[in-house]
Amino acid sequence: MGQYKVYGDIYSGNCYKVKLLMSLLNIQHQWVHVDILKGESRTTDFLAKNPNGRVPVLELPDGRCLCESNAILHFLARESAFLPTDPFSYAQVLQWQFFEQYSHEPYIATSRYIIRYLGSPADRQAELETRRVGGYAALDVMEQHLGKHSFLVGDACSIADISLYAYTHVASEGGFSLTPYPHIRHWLDRISRHPHHGTMDQFAP
Amino acid sequence: MGQYKVYGDIYSGNCYKVKLLMSLLNIQHQWVHVDILKGESRTTDFLAKNPNGRVPVLELPDGRCLCESNAILHFLARESAFLPTDPFSYAQVLQWQFFEQYSHEPYIATSRYIIRYLGSPADRQAELETRRVGGYAALDVMEQHLGKHSFLVGDACSIADISLYAYTHVASEGGFSLTPYPHIRHWLDRISRHPHHGTMDQFAP
Repeated sequence: MGQYKVYGDIYSGNCYKVKLLMSLLNIQHQWVHVDILKGESRTTDFLAKNPNGRVPVLELPDGRCLCESNAILHFLARESAFLPTDPFSYAQVLQWQFFEQYSHEPYIATSRYIIRYLGSPADRQAELETRRVGGYAALDVMEQHLGKHSFLVGDACSIADISLYAYTHVASEGGFSLTPYPHIRHWLDRISRHPHHGTMDQFAP
Repeated sequence: MGQYKVYGDIYSGNCYKVKLLMSLLNIQHQWVHVDILKGESRTTDFLAKNPNGRVPVLELPDGRCLCESNAILHFLARESAFLPTDPFSYAQVLQWQFFEQYSHEPYIATSRYIIRYLGSPADRQAELETRRVGGYAALDVMEQHLGKHSFLVGDACSIADISLYAYTHVASEGGFSLTPYPHIRHWLDRISRHPHHGTMDQFAP
C-alpha cells in the first residue's frame, strides 16, 4: 500500500494549505519539493502530472494526480469534520474558496510573490499598488464576516478557513497590515491553536 | 412556496453558466438583471446580498444568498447527473472549476470585458496582450485534455463543462481564435446540442 505524494513548495500558501489539512487530519504522505523559480514545475515529467504547470499536485497511491489546491482539500477532507454536509453550508465553503482564488489570492499571494520571491523589482511597483487595493478589499470582506462569525462557515473550522488562512496569515509578507483587522487576527489565532497546526517553517522539509 | 431568484447579467459568462444549468435541469427561477456598468452591483441593497459586490447571486426562497458562480452550480446540481458521485471524479470537477476561475476567466473573460463592455480603450492594449498569452495557455490545456476525452470529467457532461463552456464559447469576443482548437470546437458543439441549451441571446430577459 503506497501513500500520498504532494508536489509543492511549502512556502507557497496554495501548497501549505494542503500540508496543514494533512497535518490536522493526520494523513501520512511524502512531500516532494518543487522549485518553481528553477523551472521544476515546467519539466516534461511535471507537466505529465499537471498540464497547467502549477503546484500543488496530489499524487494518489495508484498514480492518479489531482491539481488545484482547493480541489485537493475537498478530496482529502471528504467525510471529515472540516466539510459540512448540509448542502447550503457545503456550498458556502465553496463560495469562500472561489472567493479565495479569484478575489484574494491574485492580490495578496501575488504581492507576496513579487516581494518575497522576486525581490520587489522597481518595474513592478505600479502593479503592487494595484494589487494592494484588491487585497485590502478582500480583507474588508473577510473582516466584515468574521465580526459576526467565529469561522467562515457555521461554527466550526472548515476547509474554507484552511484555504483563506494560508495566504492571510502571511499577508504581511505581501505588504499588507492586519492591524486594522482585529476580527481576522482573532480568527487566525483560533486556527493556529489547533494542536496539529504548524507554521510554514515548522512544516519545511 | 417561493422560487429562486438569480441576480446577474446574462451576457456575463459567470451569470450565463448559472442560467444554462437551470435550463438544463429545468429549475424555475426569476432573473433579476443587474447592470454592473451602472453600479448596480455596488448599491447598499446588493452588497447586503453579496458583500464582495459581484454577480451572480442566487437568492433562495427563504432569503439566504449564495455567491460565486461555481459554488452556485454545485448547490443546484447536487444529486443530479451533472455532478459525479465518485470522490476522485467529483474532485476533478472542482479541479477544472478552480482552473476556470484562476487560469481561464482572468484572461479570456477579462479580455472580452475590456473589448465588449469597455470598447477596447487604447490605454489597455498592453494589458490585453498580456492576457492573450494566459488565455491561449488555458485553451492549450483544455485542447490537450479534450483530444483524449469527450468531456472534462468522465464520459458525461458535468458542471465542469458548464463552467468552462460559458466563457470559451464566446472567446472570440475577447479576441481569441478557436480555429487552432478543433477538440474544443467539437466539445462546444456537443454541449450546445443539449435540447435545453440556449445562447446568451436566447436567454436574455
